[in-house]
Amino acid sequence: MTLKLFKNAHVFTPRTGPAPAAGAAQGEIFEIADGCLLVENGRIAALGERREVEEKRGGRAVEMEIDLDGAPVIPGFVDPHTHACFAALREEEFSMRLAGKPYLEILKAGGGILSSVRSVRAASGDELFRFSKALLDATLRYGTTTIEIKSGYGLDTENELKLLDVIDRLGRETPQSVVPTFMGAHAVPEEYGTKPDAYVKLLRDEMLPAVVKQGVARFCDIFCEEGVFSVPESRAILEKARELGLKLKIHADEVNDLGGAVLAGELRAASAEHLLAASDAGIAALAGGGVVAVLLPATAYSLKKPFARARAMIERGVPVALATDLNPGSCFCRSMPFVFSLAVLGMNMTPEEALTGATLNAAWAIGMEKEAGSLEPGKLADFVVLDGRSPAALAYASGSRPIRSVWKTGEKMA
Amino acid sequence: MTLKLFKNAHVFTPRTGPAPAAGAAQGEIFEIADGCLLVENGRIAALGERREVEEKRGGRAVEMEIDLDGAPVIPGFVDPHTHACFAALREEEFSMRLAGKPYLEILKAGGGILSSVRSVRAASGDELFRFSKALLDATLRYGTTTIEIKSGYGLDTENELKLLDVIDRLGRETPQSVVPTFMGAHAVPEEYGTKPDAYVKLLRDEMLPAVVKQGVARFCDIFCEEGVFSVPESRAILEKARELGLKLKIHADEVNDLGGAVLAGELRAASAEHLLAASDAGIAALAGGGVVAVLLPATAYSLKKPFARARAMIERGVPVALATDLNPGSCFCRSMPFVFSLAVLGMNMTPEEALTGATLNAAWAIGMEKEAGSLEPGKLADFVVLDGRSPAALAYASGSRPIRSVWKTGEKMA
Repeated sequence: MTLKLFKNAHVFTPRTGPAPAAGAAQGEIFEIADGCLLVENGRIAALGERREVEEKRGGRAVEMEIDLDGAPVIPGFVDPHTHACFAALREEEFSMRLAGKPYLEILKAGGGILSSVRSVRAASGDELFRFSKALLDATLRYGTTTIEIKSGYGLDTENELKLLDVIDRLGRETPQSVVPTFMGAHAVPEEYGTKPDAYVKLLRDEMLPAVVKQGVARFCDIFCEEGVFSVPESRAILEKARELGLKLKIHADEVNDLGGAVLAGELRAASAEHLLAASDAGIAALAGGGVVAVLLPATAYSLKKPFARARAMIERGVPVALATDLNPGSCFCRSMPFVFSLAVLGMNMTPEEALTGATLNAAWAIGMEKEAGSLEPGKLADFVVLDGRSPAALAYASGSRPIRSVWKTGEKMA
Repeated sequence: MTLKLFKNAHVFTPRTGPAPAAGAAQGEIFEIADGCLLVENGRIAALGERREVEEKRGGRAVEMEIDLDGAPVIPGFVDPHTHACFAALREEEFSMRLAGKPYLEILKAGGGILSSVRSVRAASGDELFRFSKALLDATLRYGTTTIEIKSGYGLDTENELKLLDVIDRLGRETPQSVVPTFMGAHAVPEEYGTKPDAYVKLLRDEMLPAVVKQGVARFCDIFCEEGVFSVPESRAILEKARELGLKLKIHADEVNDLGGAVLAGELRAASAEHLLAASDAGIAALAGGGVVAVLLPATAYSLKKPFARARAMIERGVPVALATDLNPGSCFCRSMPFVFSLAVLGMNMTPEEALTGATLNAAWAIGMEKEAGSLEPGKLADFVVLDGRSPAALAYASGSRPIRSVWKTGEKMA
């Protein structure tokens, strides 16, 4: 039984309701100007003004008393969308894209998602673990204390299970809380190039049952897009996944408005991701289905595309979450503060909306709302102490790391 | 006499020509795949392939031999436009601006440039030095080894001289090379609100002679903008400054196309800054006058404005430089890697053009082209070792700090 007391904290946190924070609630941040935080065995035992917290403490001795000097304290970032388990970067491909090389030529030059598939298939579990752990360490320095990681660079049963196994190990052997997602439907692998139907069949009949038997993945995600998986194929795979007990996510309407957001609403998926091209009908479907829109502004930035319509989504009642999309191809971003800055300065979210998006709504998107995403008694003592006066510092100091310290279950990480 | 050898360096550098690099030359980067760098008393003694450098070394003993492991090595960043000498941040004002509060209300609430003037006037030289040194330390961690700093928060003779004195001390007591610019014409001070002519007279007849007598400032800059200084006022002040021996800079066409770029061309100023609203005629005048366009994309980003037309400038033969604009109001950015990323992903400059802009052309803009801005024998041994495979890593890893180490006159700084 260890007890720690954090005092002189300027607390900014959303508060967990019965559902993800939508509409005006997305901008509601609870503030304690001169707050205290009592941490017991890695969880928040009490939070409030000094007097209340001292009452809860009841005179018990504390192992540590930490003075935060009036600095802003926010919940640790929850990054609800990453592909952070891979074996090699693709900086050359980024340079080719900048030089205007068409995607087909990049593919011919050995780039694209299938190049990550080749390097992941060639890597051992240990190699994958070491490479990915370094990525996770970087995200932790930028304040991410809970992170979702998708498989999807294996694209056959053996290699997808290998990735999920590494993701599981990352959750056990790094400080961060890791939520594993199966994304065998990330692309059609080269060997199925001419017969995507056969790959859909493999996903449903072999991969999904094997993944569920393995017992690591909590979610199933799919890339619903022209040239990847159609809406009927996506529906077929996701319905099977749900039947087997997995929760659902969809990469929807990233490039074209294929109806992925509508499908997400229909299936009442936990989240729909990207949504750069989502139509008004798609946005209405997300609101109707209570689906969290996981927006990835660093990807739009990195691909030089217009941002997703965050304001329209918030105004129409869609709960919005923010994520890095950390991956070797379209977006090598490890910084939630940068995503926060893009949300505020690029997508016109308020700092309060962006804070809820990067913490509580992100936790909802990955089923972690009972453990993370806000500073409330009973939740993990995961928090970030900012270098500034309010969460707006994350956008005010764009491009840097306005963080004094990062704490995970009450332990100092950075 | 100390000698250091850096080996296994993947060198990327522009090369100094007779004038700032314009047009196609802006994109010309010289590369040595397996390079060596010999540093003698803080300057580059030799640079090239191992064999050539060993010849130059001539068997002399080296104090240190550093293996850079094939990492990219670029010149230390030159930040040619900052207001990095002030006494207090203005994060609250940033939040008000995000909330859509009009600038006049922000002024009434005590914000705006004049709030920085009040805090600077109230601060002692020591206080200003300590605050500004912390800012400079942060920029150094992001790879800035040479930095221009403007006065302009004093706005009376005594306080402008105080600021220049602190800027001079920053140059002597920090590792970075500091170039001081006098910018008494940054705004019309409150006490001259109704009689700007009297302030222009003070600038010409009292402040400029006092500044030249002090002997710190190398440049004179002016904010040529509606409601600040008109084109005729700017011309009058700058002509006086030139007469007294100062080199010229102009904050031109930031908000409105007032003709500041045309004036910069006419006066053959060293640089024109901001240029968000510069017209085609303004761009032609910059090209004709050999004026460096100092672009500040982090300011546009922070103010949610469209970026300057970098491509049009490069295509029409204007040498383009990049800077942070570090200041407490419109842009609290300390990271040249972030500016590089915005140049590439927001302004469509190539990584090669951005590298020249953030190093050699930036050095030209502040008269440091003989000392800094490229890796060439005789120049200061200022360089940054990147975490990646090429300078494109600075945009590929947007929002983070893809830097392994920073070296100033051959000493490791970060």
